[in-house]
Amino acid sequence: MASPAKSISAYGEARSTVQGKPLDAEEVRKMTAYFRASLYLCLGMLYLRENPLLKEPLKVEHLKARLLGHWGSDAGQSFTWLHMNRLIKKYDLDVLFVSGPGHGVYTEVYPDKSEDEDGMKKFFKQFSFPGGIGSHATPETPGSLHEGGELGYSISHAFGTVFDNPNLITLTMVGDGESETGPLATSWHSTKFLNPIVDGAVLPVLHLNGYKINNPTVLARISHEELTALMAGYGWKPYFVEGSDLDTMHQAMAATLEKCVQEIREYQQQARSSKKAFRPRWPMIVLRTPKGWTAPRDVDGKFLEGFWRAHQIPITDVATNPGHLKVLENWMKGYQPEALFDQNGSLIPELKELAPTGNARMSANPVGNGGILRKPLILNDFREYALRDIVPGKTIKGGMANMAKFLRDVVGKNKNFRLFGPDETESNKLAEVYKEGKKVWMGDYFDEDKDGGNLAPDGRVMEILSEHTCEGWLEGYILSGRHGLLNSYEPFVHVIDSMVNQHCKWIEKCLEVEWRAKVASLNILITATVWRQDHNGFTHQDPGFLDVVANKSPEVVRIYLPPDGNTLLSVMDHCLRSVNYVNVVVADKQDHIQFLSMDEAIAHCTKGLGIWDWASNDQGAEPDIVVASCGDVSTHEALAATALLRENLPDLKVRFVNVVDLFRLISGIHHPHGMPDRQWKAIFTDNKPIIFNFHSYPWLIHRLTYKRPGQQNLHVRGYREKGNIDTPFELAMRNGTDRYSLAIDAIDLIPELVNKASSVREKLVNARLAGKAQAFENGIDPEHIRNWVWPFARK
Amino acid sequence: MASPAKSISAYGEARSTVQGKPLDAEEVRKMTAYFRASLYLCLGMLYLRENPLLKEPLKVEHLKARLLGHWGSDAGQSFTWLHMNRLIKKYDLDVLFVSGPGHGVYTEVYPDKSEDEDGMKKFFKQFSFPGGIGSHATPETPGSLHEGGELGYSISHAFGTVFDNPNLITLTMVGDGESETGPLATSWHSTKFLNPIVDGAVLPVLHLNGYKINNPTVLARISHEELTALMAGYGWKPYFVEGSDLDTMHQAMAATLEKCVQEIREYQQQARSSKKAFRPRWPMIVLRTPKGWTAPRDVDGKFLEGFWRAHQIPITDVATNPGHLKVLENWMKGYQPEALFDQNGSLIPELKELAPTGNARMSANPVGNGGILRKPLILNDFREYALRDIVPGKTIKGGMANMAKFLRDVVGKNKNFRLFGPDETESNKLAEVYKEGKKVWMGDYFDEDKDGGNLAPDGRVMEILSEHTCEGWLEGYILSGRHGLLNSYEPFVHVIDSMVNQHCKWIEKCLEVEWRAKVASLNILITATVWRQDHNGFTHQDPGFLDVVANKSPEVVRIYLPPDGNTLLSVMDHCLRSVNYVNVVVADKQDHIQFLSMDEAIAHCTKGLGIWDWASNDQGAEPDIVVASCGDVSTHEALAATALLRENLPDLKVRFVNVVDLFRLISGIHHPHGMPDRQWKAIFTDNKPIIFNFHSYPWLIHRLTYKRPGQQNLHVRGYREKGNIDTPFELAMRNGTDRYSLAIDAIDLIPELVNKASSVREKLVNARLAGKAQAFENGIDPEHIRNWVWPFARK
Repeated sequence: MASPAKSISAYGEARSTVQGKPLDAEEVRKMTAYFRASLYLCLGMLYLRENPLLKEPLKVEHLKARLLGHWGSDAGQSFTWLHMNRLIKKYDLDVLFVSGPGHGVYTEVYPDKSEDEDGMKKFFKQFSFPGGIGSHATPETPGSLHEGGELGYSISHAFGTVFDNPNLITLTMVGDGESETGPLATSWHSTKFLNPIVDGAVLPVLHLNGYKINNPTVLARISHEELTALMAGYGWKPYFVEGSDLDTMHQAMAATLEKCVQEIREYQQQARSSKKAFRPRWPMIVLRTPKGWTAPRDVDGKFLEGFWRAHQIPITDVATNPGHLKVLENWMKGYQPEALFDQNGSLIPELKELAPTGNARMSANPVGNGGILRKPLILNDFREYALRDIVPGKTIKGGMANMAKFLRDVVGKNKNFRLFGPDETESNKLAEVYKEGKKVWMGDYFDEDKDGGNLAPDGRVMEILSEHTCEGWLEGYILSGRHGLLNSYEPFVHVIDSMVNQHCKWIEKCLEVEWRAKVASLNILITATVWRQDHNGFTHQDPGFLDVVANKSPEVVRIYLPPDGNTLLSVMDHCLRSVNYVNVVVADKQDHIQFLSMDEAIAHCTKGLGIWDWASNDQGAEPDIVVASCGDVSTHEALAATALLRENLPDLKVRFVNVVDLFRLISGIHHPHGMPDRQWKAIFTDNKPIIFNFHSYPWLIHRLTYKRPGQQNLHVRGYREKGNIDTPFELAMRNGTDRYSLAIDAIDLIPELVNKASSVREKLVNARLAGKAQAFENGIDPEHIRNWVWPFARK
Repeated sequence: MASPAKSISAYGEARSTVQGKPLDAEEVRKMTAYFRASLYLCLGMLYLRENPLLKEPLKVEHLKARLLGHWGSDAGQSFTWLHMNRLIKKYDLDVLFVSGPGHGVYTEVYPDKSEDEDGMKKFFKQFSFPGGIGSHATPETPGSLHEGGELGYSISHAFGTVFDNPNLITLTMVGDGESETGPLATSWHSTKFLNPIVDGAVLPVLHLNGYKINNPTVLARISHEELTALMAGYGWKPYFVEGSDLDTMHQAMAATLEKCVQEIREYQQQARSSKKAFRPRWPMIVLRTPKGWTAPRDVDGKFLEGFWRAHQIPITDVATNPGHLKVLENWMKGYQPEALFDQNGSLIPELKELAPTGNARMSANPVGNGGILRKPLILNDFREYALRDIVPGKTIKGGMANMAKFLRDVVGKNKNFRLFGPDETESNKLAEVYKEGKKVWMGDYFDEDKDGGNLAPDGRVMEILSEHTCEGWLEGYILSGRHGLLNSYEPFVHVIDSMVNQHCKWIEKCLEVEWRAKVASLNILITATVWRQDHNGFTHQDPGFLDVVANKSPEVVRIYLPPDGNTLLSVMDHCLRSVNYVNVVVADKQDHIQFLSMDEAIAHCTKGLGIWDWASNDQGAEPDIVVASCGDVSTHEALAATALLRENLPDLKVRFVNVVDLFRLISGIHHPHGMPDRQWKAIFTDNKPIIFNFHSYPWLIHRLTYKRPGQQNLHVRGYREKGNIDTPFELAMRNGTDRYSLAIDAIDLIPELVNKASSVREKLVNARLAGKAQAFENGIDPEHIRNWVWPFARK
């Protein structure tokens, strides 16, 4: 087999795009010593709980009881870190470090620890240890805002940090394993959305470490020409640094990294002085070094360095194999700890001074603890945007399009806010925002863009058809101290389930880290919802993102389903002011019936749920039945069912309840927004049937209301995965959430009505069937939709 | 702003990599006529419900009441389709068509409909119409196995179809919008896993349509050089066909497509005759045409053709704007329907004969209805692989590593089975399979690969660090009539939530399409589970994939949590034999206690859940409490709790229940596996407390058991999003799922024990605290884990 990559060895003297020897011999010596110190600390974290400086011969009792952690990418990451330290000092740079490979140990923070033998012992011990720190970057890691573990988001996170941060360079280690993920593969295109005038720069270092857990990586096994072409095709200018020989590798990396920093600054200078934004072919580095670099090449004839066996604990049986314990001891001693640390375990001064100090340290960059940089948004009074002059229960208006005016002014007033979305902002009726901030576009422009293209290099709206990239940018933007909102079609927000999971976990853990300041909430606006996916059909019907979010920690998740336009405004204002939450807001983008004035909306949202007296007729009495709703379309139908019941059974006492804040339903023991049983009972009763019409899958309501008094009386209707190319009405009927089905359910649940209301029931059944027939006959006619929405105008 | 892409117009005479004029004038004329006929039908589907041949002047009453659908990519797709038709006929090719762009109309299937005016009318009407067909490829579309809608999977699906299908060429239209998604961006690398000897070929046509819904696409706005480099970097050889002039575009496309087909066949011939697999730079086409090609360039001075306004309905107000109705009429008449269809609406013979016939039609390729090609797997008797000689409740063995032997022989015996996974197969203890099928690798080889690399061009295991690509390949492989299994770490299977959702919807809808034959089930083996993510910590703890799956249609989803090794074998055998399901199997990869002999395991799995008599002491009596479990680690702890209760409270009657088949818990009304209340009551009682220890988030059990008799007595413990770097025991304690917490819960739930068992309770509380202290003291010690597993050996 022809194997053109075979010649691309990770070994030997450095081969690099940039030539030059910027370091003198003394600098090379010190860099090597610092590198050895870093790697010594890495191994110590993996192996040692006693004897940290190896002053005594290494014995089994000095080892950790359980060996955990990852060695594979440590050397390449440390190497890059220390070379950036040189340039930070030389050029007074503002640099954040993002570590993309899944796992690595972070000696970088060692200088922050107590620098003595005891400190080193503690530092070693806490790594990947109960109550200690993770085996990848976690919230406890100073300077980090990017969690390892799940892979694929290093570049999108990095771009999020540099948007509107013109002086920042985010040095981003990209794992070659990580590079195989879809989210990472498309995130290289982020350069088409980065403006060199207002934004900083991302400097990726693609670490061709060669291997994943048990496999070679794709990018390490393609030809040099292919890899060069790939990076150029993504819009970058790749610089290669390849090899293992330390002296020449230091020179190559020093020259290359400096060249990249200079290019970045030149491009920025050019754009800023000319005030003309352009898209440079930004520099990036391909760093090919052996996996587990500086480990023994083989142990007992099995490859270690430069092979996948170096991924985690490089030698696993040191506790039981004395020969291997000796190999480890020799290896560690080979770094010459006695020449790197003083007798107390403190790094010797000549090495310590290689690192920058104070906030110039990458581990101390305030951007890595963005909460301390966060400034609250300047928000107009949302009440000014109220939908007015509405006849409640009659007027049909677009709550989303109206809310867009509020968002427009958020965009206009705040240079620390951006709106994100996968090419759906206009489809989602939010185009009004373009009046204050166009779409960022650094791809090429055509003349036709003037015809409503709404593109601009200095836009404020970020649109790429990748939910992953949008979410990654937004997370990076928020975690570095700013604010934002993601809008997405409901069915496809599942694409980022796992990213949102990870963000929830990150901000929850940050609550436990005392020096972490709170960041702005991650706001997700879900629209184009299940009940209006009439022509896209079954594939576009999935409201289950709420189930994923509801599994996350109650400390951080909030879910709102405003029933109309004014409640949507109130909810959005609340979300934009909040911190450290993941706020999910579900509201359809189409025109819908409006119910509440702004004052009523505020009162309702403040309570989170409540009885709508005007739709109820149980005043001063116990109801015969409670009709409840959560979600805009669900509320229409539930109200219409209430109307049908009241018109046809005037003696029936119906109470109508609407829920905006989903977590109000849960017990106060389980969520801060939960309400006590006493309050639950006052609203829902503990002995009357409840028909609950829910926006999403019905079981979520059962889950949230488990153990509520009278829970057995709760009958939830929602989306039950029944759909096709349907009229909205037919879709509701399929799932039993239409007005007729709900009213029929109500009658069936009240024993006294079984005989008394049989004729009414028959009438409703016929009306339901007629509605169905009509829906088929008329096709999907907007007028028809209008005719079957709530016929019961609020008095 | 320098704009090098500006010169890349989608307009004008064809510009192409391949020169040559393979068509004579007559052929060009016919191709153009066929193209016009296709586009006429597309517009008809969007607009007309009467007057299909425009024999009368177009009036409002001829229009559909609601205009839905997408015009933007129709022309480019039709153009590609008809050119492939030519080559299918010329070379007798076996071709499947995969349509990647989100939406398009499919005139391709028109020849399958009744070919007369009435048939045309029906064909027009059903499009995107209630009870009709979707606005993107759906199961109802003949020849389709790739759903539009959610984007990003066209290439991975296409590769799935050609693996082990040496004669097949899957022609894949790739949308330039779709290309921005992560899953699509990485799926180009699939060539590194395609063997030209045993596999067929994918021929992608990247359709540079220029615009998404409301935005330009990234790939259409980068330079020619960048796009060329990108495709070359991905390992492809790009051929460009760009322009709008029909005569020259036909020549360019004909020459280019033919060149690509020839290259594919040459590479295959070379590899097959030499028996040496290599990775060619496979050809692909970049087709740049105006969005909405052949529409009016502008309407009232607003761009239509070649702009994003052509995305959906190109002119929306034809019903209310008589001028625009006239524009539409002129446009449609411009295709000259009278010259394309006869008076009866049938395509004229000279055009009809351009298309292939029978199964050579892309719409009739049996691969597009893979169920008819499916052959059952040849499976050894799984009982031969039983874990034997175990002391139930004592022996600790690796059920996953053992099951791998069964899988190994599945791989060995079946050339229509592949195993898929994101670089975790070995980590998941399944490396045994490599003995019968190595990992497919068509990247470059290094010498060191001989040292346990397990790589081979003709392997059977597919590993790339992209859950999206693995899942996409597997879906394509199954839908084209083969079998497979995906293995994944539990937390990161959320990455493919949305893909699995869409696959569930696809196979559910296929049940409604009478000509669709059932395909093999999509089998997902989830391991590296939440309860053993001790060193990876909180980021790796998410068992919520089950919630996503449980929302899907009961017709298609199955969830199994075998408690030990022999039940795992029984479950896997069942899943591999099943059809048209999504089977999710959750089992940890570590060594665990074994409980059941193979005969017992089979009996237990057949029932799906059952009382374990040997762990219970309520024989012949009503129990005082039911202890239930679902999941392997959960079962250990629940059994240990049972042991604690029985040891300390010998008079207490404890019943132990284990659940393998999760949907047994639900009512038989809601799921085919659900059991009737009568049976529920016989197992769980309707009046005794139940402590249910669950693998995943506890609320799922509440949801499944809603309305069960005695539901209020059900107390579910599970993962409550409480985690860190924990010992397994500490993690269990945090979430209340450890043996002590469960036993204490049991005591608290039985009123008679409040006083009677107070000293036992105190003892358990102290033991719990001591266990915690011990866990901290000892670190994560495997011996310690062993010490706290079930101390109550089965007698």
